[in-house]
Amino acid sequence: MSLENYASIIGDSKINEIYAKARRLQGTRILHINSTNQGGGVAEILRSLVPLMNDAGLEADWRVLHGTPDFFEITKKFHNGLQGRAFNLSEYKKQLYVDTNRTFSSYCHIDADCVVVHDPQPLPLIKFYKKNGPWIWRCHVDLSNPAPDLWEFLKTFVIRYDMTVVSSEAYCKKCLPLEQRIIYPAIDPLSLKNRELSKGDMLKYIRKAGIPTDKPLMTQVSRMDIWKDPEGVLEVYKQVKKQVDCRLLYCYDMASDDPEGRIVLDRMRRKAKKFIESGDVLFVQGCKQVLVNAIQRFSDVLVQKSKKEGFCLTVTEALWKGKPVVGSRVGGIPHQLVEAENGFLVDPNDTKAFADRVVELLKNPKLAEQLGRRGKETVRENFLMTRLLTDYLDMLTDILPGRNGHCTACGHPLPVATAAATAAAAAV
Amino acid sequence: MSLENYASIIGDSKINEIYAKARRLQGTRILHINSTNQGGGVAEILRSLVPLMNDAGLEADWRVLHGTPDFFEITKKFHNGLQGRAFNLSEYKKQLYVDTNRTFSSYCHIDADCVVVHDPQPLPLIKFYKKNGPWIWRCHVDLSNPAPDLWEFLKTFVIRYDMTVVSSEAYCKKCLPLEQRIIYPAIDPLSLKNRELSKGDMLKYIRKAGIPTDKPLMTQVSRMDIWKDPEGVLEVYKQVKKQVDCRLLYCYDMASDDPEGRIVLDRMRRKAKKFIESGDVLFVQGCKQVLVNAIQRFSDVLVQKSKKEGFCLTVTEALWKGKPVVGSRVGGIPHQLVEAENGFLVDPNDTKAFADRVVELLKNPKLAEQLGRRGKETVRENFLMTRLLTDYLDMLTDILPGRNGHCTACGHPLPVATAAATAAAAAV
Repeated sequence: MSLENYASIIGDSKINEIYAKARRLQGTRILHINSTNQGGGVAEILRSLVPLMNDAGLEADWRVLHGTPDFFEITKKFHNGLQGRAFNLSEYKKQLYVDTNRTFSSYCHIDADCVVVHDPQPLPLIKFYKKNGPWIWRCHVDLSNPAPDLWEFLKTFVIRYDMTVVSSEAYCKKCLPLEQRIIYPAIDPLSLKNRELSKGDMLKYIRKAGIPTDKPLMTQVSRMDIWKDPEGVLEVYKQVKKQVDCRLLYCYDMASDDPEGRIVLDRMRRKAKKFIESGDVLFVQGCKQVLVNAIQRFSDVLVQKSKKEGFCLTVTEALWKGKPVVGSRVGGIPHQLVEAENGFLVDPNDTKAFADRVVELLKNPKLAEQLGRRGKETVRENFLMTRLLTDYLDMLTDILPGRNGHCTACGHPLPVATAAATAAAAAV
Repeated sequence: MSLENYASIIGDSKINEIYAKARRLQGTRILHINSTNQGGGVAEILRSLVPLMNDAGLEADWRVLHGTPDFFEITKKFHNGLQGRAFNLSEYKKQLYVDTNRTFSSYCHIDADCVVVHDPQPLPLIKFYKKNGPWIWRCHVDLSNPAPDLWEFLKTFVIRYDMTVVSSEAYCKKCLPLEQRIIYPAIDPLSLKNRELSKGDMLKYIRKAGIPTDKPLMTQVSRMDIWKDPEGVLEVYKQVKKQVDCRLLYCYDMASDDPEGRIVLDRMRRKAKKFIESGDVLFVQGCKQVLVNAIQRFSDVLVQKSKKEGFCLTVTEALWKGKPVVGSRVGGIPHQLVEAENGFLVDPNDTKAFADRVVELLKNPKLAEQLGRRGKETVRENFLMTRLLTDYLDMLTDILPGRNGHCTACGHPLPVATAAATAAAAAV
């Protein structure tokens, strides 16, 4: 995919702005490191962002930490711990976490101009390299209330970085003595998950997945994760079902670094047994992106009853498809949903309010359509991959020596011609 | 892990030989690419080989192709097809296979001096790079009788390479116009899977896995794969059980690039239902290396009833632990087992002969011990990671320009001093 493909969505002038911003960064080697290439929002972002960075003239790479099942079990606990759930942070866990990173460093030489490390799994990597340029920790997790001992431990790695990037002002940490930047994540409107789908194709995928089409559908698309509150979704559905005959579809994804998912799914299946048997509650594994696309487009209401969220790209995806969304007032959801403007925001513990909003939308398709239309424009303006790329280019220009058009010695701004001449001289 | 740790196993002089061979390759950048970092012999080899290459002074890296479930479903069919099982090689499959490689190339810049591509999954990568030095295709699969249309298709990529490396003379292809080299794979005697284990630790892991210790144990350690013939193993067990009261343990591993495994396991479970209920047939997922280690050490006889094998490192592992092995006369197994010398070799279709040999070993512990002792020496001599490293160093010296002590212009051998001077001059 290249940048010109986005022109019909965001307009030529924004594409041109990207090329202009990328000009000073030509050939700059950016390395992204995360811990999975399958499942979860970070992998999806990198799958689009890295090729677009290359298309803009940078030299972007993406490497995936080699984890083991043991490692991912521990980092899942870390993930939960960062979101406030206490656990026993044993020396063994700390050591295996650090050792896995140390081992990976011996498979992976780095000589990039800038390294972007995503999320806590590869955070300690920085300890095992001689830095060659700035390292940035891009944390996609809600950091507002982490388990204190875990944060103290992780901070020893974070302070080695040159900058952190988080998804919300609320996740900035006063205790950190380094620059913290807020960049909202984004979706790719041209990915299999988000691109336009004809009605015929949509129905083909829906039928192929065994989803009946005879009743309205309320849907949550999420990992099987306690923070997404799948059991709360079931409670909402039970209340909705008393007022409107509809189905609940839970479309889940199993990421290779999420060993907890299966346990949550089994518990859900037990709790929803009666409805599963009657065919009113459906679990669909959304391992194919295009199926998730079809499901979001086919659903009548999308809910997102999360208790914690980094940013919540599934809300973004639903809005981009012009769908009405009822979401929790947590994490990045209020950055996207404006109450009664382009969706509904509800307290995550208020099951009744959730159900009421879903019923309202199921009974009033005109309202649903109106909210959805406005939601799509919100996403076009703020949450597409091209905007994320722009933010990355700004960040790199600011952090990389000599790229921001200021004299590297005194910090004085250089006229563009001089900056170009300097670059040309350096290249000789 | 560093080379000196192996001195007590193979002796100082072999370690010194490795350092000497590595001398001309100092700083040479070698990049290994395969398709999984978890499960399967290739990942295990790279986990040890890459750090040892670095320890010897090369700059070795290891990257993993980003596959999707769809991709791995197709490449599993390719794997089976290379081993002779026909399938429908559709245009769609070809395209998804190539496209996944193309996509990965946009996440992964390469400027290594030599690239080693392992197995068919990342084979097409070479098409998407400007070569900077030799590329080697290291195929671990039995190539003696591939499905013709598949081989024709894959060959279009293979001929772009500078050399192929296979695990047996029988896998060399007359139709290939490039250098083909045979390198046997190897095991790491210091990995969690192979290192010494005290009797107490061994029993701790055996008990923790729920394995009863009151009857002799015949074991196969393998992926759940039709080529490993798990159902044949069950047939052998049924015949053995009539003569000696023992248990069958099938210790399997699910690799992330092997979607077929679960289907085979379910079928096995149905077929062995009666024995599973009586507790005489056990399936243990060997996701922890140390558990596999304990299981191999605790078993009385190891069988390997494969119908096809690349090389078969599970036989190597068992031999290294001083265990008697009854293996099929296929793939690399006869390279390791010498009939009645250090184990028993049997026709893969001769269930009775397999059972007879197992019974013989269960009834004659002295013979079992003797074969096992000799087997361990076979492995020490031929199949340890240090020997594999040596072979790699030889191969790199031969294939990399200017490293083999011959004049790069006329091919005339240079005296060592001149070669060193040339290198020093080049470094200025």
